[in-house]
Amino acid sequence: MNRILSEPLRRKVMSAGAAAERIRPGSTVGLSGFTGSGYPKAVPLALAARMDEARARGERFRVRVWTGASTGPELDGALARADGIEFRLPYNSDPVAREKINRGEMEYFDMHLSQVAPAAWQGFLGPLDTAVVEVAGVREDGSLIPSSSVGNNKTWLDRASQVILEVNSWQNPALAGMHDIYYGTALPPDRRPIPLTRADDRIGEPWFRCDPDKVVAVVETDAPDRNAPFTPAGADDLAIAGHLLEFFRHEVARGRLPAALLPLQSGVGNTANAVLGGLQDGPFERMTAYTEVIQDGMLGLLESGRLLAASATAFSLSPEAAHDLNARMDAFHDRIILRPQEISNHPELIRRLGCIAMNGMIDADIFGNVNSTHIMGSRIQNGIGGSGDFARNAYVSIFMAASTAKGGRISTIVPHAPHVDHIPQDVQVIVTEQGLADLRGLSPKQRAELIVANCAHPDYRPALQDYYARARRDSYGQQSPMLLQEAMAWHERFVRTGSMKPE
Amino acid sequence: MNRILSEPLRRKVMSAGAAAERIRPGSTVGLSGFTGSGYPKAVPLALAARMDEARARGERFRVRVWTGASTGPELDGALARADGIEFRLPYNSDPVAREKINRGEMEYFDMHLSQVAPAAWQGFLGPLDTAVVEVAGVREDGSLIPSSSVGNNKTWLDRASQVILEVNSWQNPALAGMHDIYYGTALPPDRRPIPLTRADDRIGEPWFRCDPDKVVAVVETDAPDRNAPFTPAGADDLAIAGHLLEFFRHEVARGRLPAALLPLQSGVGNTANAVLGGLQDGPFERMTAYTEVIQDGMLGLLESGRLLAASATAFSLSPEAAHDLNARMDAFHDRIILRPQEISNHPELIRRLGCIAMNGMIDADIFGNVNSTHIMGSRIQNGIGGSGDFARNAYVSIFMAASTAKGGRISTIVPHAPHVDHIPQDVQVIVTEQGLADLRGLSPKQRAELIVANCAHPDYRPALQDYYARARRDSYGQQSPMLLQEAMAWHERFVRTGSMKPE
Repeated sequence: MNRILSEPLRRKVMSAGAAAERIRPGSTVGLSGFTGSGYPKAVPLALAARMDEARARGERFRVRVWTGASTGPELDGALARADGIEFRLPYNSDPVAREKINRGEMEYFDMHLSQVAPAAWQGFLGPLDTAVVEVAGVREDGSLIPSSSVGNNKTWLDRASQVILEVNSWQNPALAGMHDIYYGTALPPDRRPIPLTRADDRIGEPWFRCDPDKVVAVVETDAPDRNAPFTPAGADDLAIAGHLLEFFRHEVARGRLPAALLPLQSGVGNTANAVLGGLQDGPFERMTAYTEVIQDGMLGLLESGRLLAASATAFSLSPEAAHDLNARMDAFHDRIILRPQEISNHPELIRRLGCIAMNGMIDADIFGNVNSTHIMGSRIQNGIGGSGDFARNAYVSIFMAASTAKGGRISTIVPHAPHVDHIPQDVQVIVTEQGLADLRGLSPKQRAELIVANCAHPDYRPALQDYYARARRDSYGQQSPMLLQEAMAWHERFVRTGSMKPE
Repeated sequence: MNRILSEPLRRKVMSAGAAAERIRPGSTVGLSGFTGSGYPKAVPLALAARMDEARARGERFRVRVWTGASTGPELDGALARADGIEFRLPYNSDPVAREKINRGEMEYFDMHLSQVAPAAWQGFLGPLDTAVVEVAGVREDGSLIPSSSVGNNKTWLDRASQVILEVNSWQNPALAGMHDIYYGTALPPDRRPIPLTRADDRIGEPWFRCDPDKVVAVVETDAPDRNAPFTPAGADDLAIAGHLLEFFRHEVARGRLPAALLPLQSGVGNTANAVLGGLQDGPFERMTAYTEVIQDGMLGLLESGRLLAASATAFSLSPEAAHDLNARMDAFHDRIILRPQEISNHPELIRRLGCIAMNGMIDADIFGNVNSTHIMGSRIQNGIGGSGDFARNAYVSIFMAASTAKGGRISTIVPHAPHVDHIPQDVQVIVTEQGLADLRGLSPKQRAELIVANCAHPDYRPALQDYYARARRDSYGQQSPMLLQEAMAWHERFVRTGSMKPE
């Protein structure tokens, strides 16, 4: 099936190599891609090859790379390996790029995902030279059928001086019609209320508008998304899910949550899948999701009928779940809505809908400062992503992780977070396999006692209690008692000895 | 003039002492008051006297105290002195209460000011037993003319089991009509877009609704707000204002800000007044403000004609400015709008309007983590207030302070913030008298170089550069390079020696 129905755009079909020649060294490239889906698969590889050639000639060829969120090895991996990324935003999870960043060889600004498009429009990020966007097809009138992620594509297409399209025939043609592209955003003072009041409202158009005169190349591809295999939930994941479900039941019983809960936002990963799996077993009905990503557990929940609809900006599926989705597209098509990330993550909408935000963390301190990004305070893992958009504006903001990592050598609950992404005011519930701490309406000291008692691993709990007791005695102030000389000792010890445990 | 025009409510007039008897030990009291204006002046004093009597009898009489923000010595000061506050939210600046908090004798949860009313409605803070609200008058139909602050009064009146009113004839009767009380809020899933698109839109009613059957006491007072004397701007304040005005001119010239700027949000204090004073001298015309507080500088700007209108939730004026306002109320009445703090600080509206957020700070680290609350990481000064509501949702978020404090013994720019209220993603500009760092679109390492070069005091700059150079060499990761053993050394040294300077 020919996926390029526009005659003027069909005339611009060329090889990825020819398309990549349009991208100049030092320029800024806005690419599609969000959690490993919908990213361009051919042009970045061709660009990386050009970078390698330049290096062989003794020249340096680097670009500034903007995306939706994480992409795949053909994009971040290839460009980082070619030493071709001068600056990166707003999110990365590629291991090659991560290494370069943590060696100090690549500049990286991990942004709130909702703020990328507005900042680009406001001119705060500099000009955008080239958009490279994967689509599922081109319609006769030149409008574009979005791919398996939406991300910032609308903004890249609108703002870039030139556009390169990848038309990927691997993407399911039934994606057509699932997207909702809102064209009502503006710069202040012309911003207006966004007319969305339910997770499954459609407020835009199913296609991207695109000025055909800006399109300099169309590349045909047939390549899969980076679909990571599904790993089954472990005991800790299931325990966390159990604590969380008990909390939800308790809140419904107290009248603090509706029986259908409120729109769910869920980070990715095993724990999130375990929670979604738990929700599949009841007792909540007629739920909705307003989140970033449709992952395996979300499909299961849709299929069970308990989840009526899910709004997101991207898929992030295992190969099996992707197969499942393709095979039973009829059951899902009208109940999944993919939106631009400035809408999926918009503070206005998250606050209005009253999302239940569930996100992972690297560590949390005794007061509930949460670090979701920097291992030992300095080494970036992925990025803040949309967690800040959701945590601050949620109806209730939940952070979860196992209470230890690295075979028990790292405690997730620490005296002092070495890097802070989420301040205590934005962290209402902390859950580990040990238990759940409901921190709503508590002072820092009350939070500390609960977090240590309910969430810390028994191997580390006495040391935390000892630290806190001494801080209660010796701290400069007693609002958030701390020992300045010891606050980072656990992290320092891990860097030095490979374990946070006392020597 | 009789200010109580409702016959049923006039029958409930009694002494403050009789009213205070309605408040039980252990109960939760929601009081009016925001930045020292519009707080009840008689009932809290009478309540404190009852607490003292109880203590003399060997009994303990404490209550949980909720307000809009800071109040006055007759409220927080008196209740704290009587050891009568078991728990306090969401903001305090009273010195007596602050001391008790920092000695660990009073629990205090400093909340995002926009989130207090929603959290109360959601049932997350527990039941509210009594509302004690100052008003400027009672209308014939029992509706209430708000006082010099709105704060959370609508929510306290709606949610409390019983209501005590203080009718203060010191308040200018011309306050009537300045307020805009929005009754369109709801719990999810019933929240709807808030129909405000300009700073000076009126979307509500000028009066509070109040169920007369819930009113158990009406107390007549004639007492001034806690109006703090105005202190003129110092050289550092003027230098900061100069840098900021140059930045605004530059942004307008680049087309990144409209010629009328965007709605201004301004914290309180001398630096803020200096900035507002600078704006009075041009070149910007037809400005608006969407902020928390109308302070002296804002009145001057309104009077100059450059500021068309100002929206806030409270006044916070010097006695002279209050006199000025009263004397020329005609010039101000229709150009000042006081709203509930859930509206003045609402993320939806701040993001939509694109506010220019200007807030103070205690310290900022080299990456732009900002601490606005905890001195040396543990001792609370006031609270986060609305700074988080504005900083995360602003068009551009600016933090400012002199580069040193305590006669040079404290550096405002430090290696590592010992407490974080604002993460780098929410801090786009840092200004000290030394200069301005424009951090938009920069990686942590790029931010560090700019902050140290532009904002640090020359006495501390070499030590910061030395720390950062060693962190660049020895840090575990190089995304946000840090030395775990040294990160808090400056604060530790201050606590030990009284100065951050090397020994």
